[in-house]
Amino acid sequence: MPQLRKDPVTGRWIIISTERQLRPTDFREIKEDSEEDNNKFCPFDEGNEDKTPPEIYAVRNPQTLPNTPGWDVRVVSNKYPALRIEGPLGKKGIGPFDSMNGIGAHEIVIETPSHKDQMEDYPAEHLVKVISTYQERSLDLKKDSRFKYAVIFKNFGKEAGASLHHSHSQIIATPVTPKRVKEELAGSREYYEYKERCIFCDIIDTETEKQERIITTNQDFIAIAPFASMTPFEIWILPLNHNPDFDKMNDKERKNFADILRLVLKKLSIALKKPPYNFAFHSSPNRFLRPGYWQTIDKDYHWHLEIIPRVTNLGGFEWGTGFYINPTMPEDAAKFLREINV
Amino acid sequence: MPQLRKDPVTGRWIIISTERQLRPTDFREIKEDSEEDNNKFCPFDEGNEDKTPPEIYAVRNPQTLPNTPGWDVRVVSNKYPALRIEGPLGKKGIGPFDSMNGIGAHEIVIETPSHKDQMEDYPAEHLVKVISTYQERSLDLKKDSRFKYAVIFKNFGKEAGASLHHSHSQIIATPVTPKRVKEELAGSREYYEYKERCIFCDIIDTETEKQERIITTNQDFIAIAPFASMTPFEIWILPLNHNPDFDKMNDKERKNFADILRLVLKKLSIALKKPPYNFAFHSSPNRFLRPGYWQTIDKDYHWHLEIIPRVTNLGGFEWGTGFYINPTMPEDAAKFLREINV
Repeated sequence: MPQLRKDPVTGRWIIISTERQLRPTDFREIKEDSEEDNNKFCPFDEGNEDKTPPEIYAVRNPQTLPNTPGWDVRVVSNKYPALRIEGPLGKKGIGPFDSMNGIGAHEIVIETPSHKDQMEDYPAEHLVKVISTYQERSLDLKKDSRFKYAVIFKNFGKEAGASLHHSHSQIIATPVTPKRVKEELAGSREYYEYKERCIFCDIIDTETEKQERIITTNQDFIAIAPFASMTPFEIWILPLNHNPDFDKMNDKERKNFADILRLVLKKLSIALKKPPYNFAFHSSPNRFLRPGYWQTIDKDYHWHLEIIPRVTNLGGFEWGTGFYINPTMPEDAAKFLREINV
Repeated sequence: MPQLRKDPVTGRWIIISTERQLRPTDFREIKEDSEEDNNKFCPFDEGNEDKTPPEIYAVRNPQTLPNTPGWDVRVVSNKYPALRIEGPLGKKGIGPFDSMNGIGAHEIVIETPSHKDQMEDYPAEHLVKVISTYQERSLDLKKDSRFKYAVIFKNFGKEAGASLHHSHSQIIATPVTPKRVKEELAGSREYYEYKERCIFCDIIDTETEKQERIITTNQDFIAIAPFASMTPFEIWILPLNHNPDFDKMNDKERKNFADILRLVLKKLSIALKKPPYNFAFHSSPNRFLRPGYWQTIDKDYHWHLEIIPRVTNLGGFEWGTGFYINPTMPEDAAKFLREINV
């Protein structure tokens, strides 16, 4: 059973995932073994449905059965989950240390039956299906009262943590609210209490007036290089209309979100020659749990997607202080991306 | 002039270091270019003193002149500094965005005249000279009232962010207290207010009683695999006697610190086959600035060194949530390191 442990000084939770435990001598080999290889057997390819855990959800031809070919998008449990779905939370404290059982969900969204296509290559209508899959899974995971938060994220390229080449994203639901999420929620609430405005709406207004950090916009979304980008070419995509919940996007918004995401990923791929990247949806936490506590969140939080190209290495300064050194002006990154024709 | 920018949502500061600005097409080349190369010209070698900025401090033969051979440890300004030493803070706000000039210090500690020796190879008495250099520079930087914090850190290996092979560490002094440091100080203070004990002293007591996460100890120090390790084989070295300030270690403590650091780095090098790693000193902030504010820090904070081997890749989950997945039990890492004979 994996374990959640809390650092007693900073309050940061970590997951000790014993399922994936490795001997020390394995570490160097992992790196060498993670090269993308298009010829190797791939459990995510169409026809290999029996090589993954059973499917939890799929967008598929209604004539076909679960766990057979005929799908467009397929969600399965992670074969090596960081957290386990069964069991009680089992909270305990020993001296200054808090821990609990590693309860949670860890799902894989197999985004396409194609082994080679990457997210930027999908036709717009296919990306819409992937996004709606994210929404369905998010709404479903919120029904489990043990989970405080579910994060949907993607690792592309081995430097970004991807261990399989076949295009996929992941969903992890956790029994505690992650530190970074708490900080964002607290920061947004504090701003709202002071200004009675949403901080993200204010950011959109400032960026729209200034123009210099905008990468692209459409009817419902804006893509910017954020003012305090942690890394070169960091990108945020935000809905223009205030909305705390990613999973409440409607049909038209979903289509426009797929369009802007596709465009931004294509621009990034051209600009930095297919860089490894991570993205993560930042959306409101599971409010079914503590409705009173979240009474202002409809007004103060604003969902968005953060994309981090992995083009620089973190060093001891970043690890030691949480301060990031970014060698590229966000204004220059935005201009460069804006001017790329797709 | 580099710029400091604050993320308006989370309050995290970042440094935009325009001095190091790169064109987008440069990013992929950096990676390929950073291979260690023992045959290339090295500005840190003895005899090449004129190829670095002038020395700020050195441990050298008293018969020799600054910026000539004859030194054991040498401190120079970084040729490509993330922050600049000259100028006013220039704080300003535009809409929701805060920024200030990138004022600070960025120094390189060239730890040895030898091109090949790494920190674990130094004789004990040489490592003592490196540590005392860290202390001298820390005390000196605290005299500048613009600097709130100085972090001393080391990047070893290119995956850990080192761009030169010749053994060196770095010091960055910043005009704002870094977020991670603030969190540690706040956590320690909160614990002290509640328990009237130092959280780190309590951790040492718990670890000493349990034994299972201890790697090694000596008369003045303990090395542990921390309870909530973020990464496999994370190591903390803490002084057994309560002390908030790294730079106030005395001669005997410095010698014992050099001994335990050397031993731990040797064990790590054997265990993980010379892994890339980062370390950073976590010590109290510049208290000359706001003496009243820090009145309890002598009691509640406890300096220590954190060592992070870079053996796993961060993914979108870590970037998006600040939650870390660690595949190795700290107890197993400690046992493995404990049993390695050096």
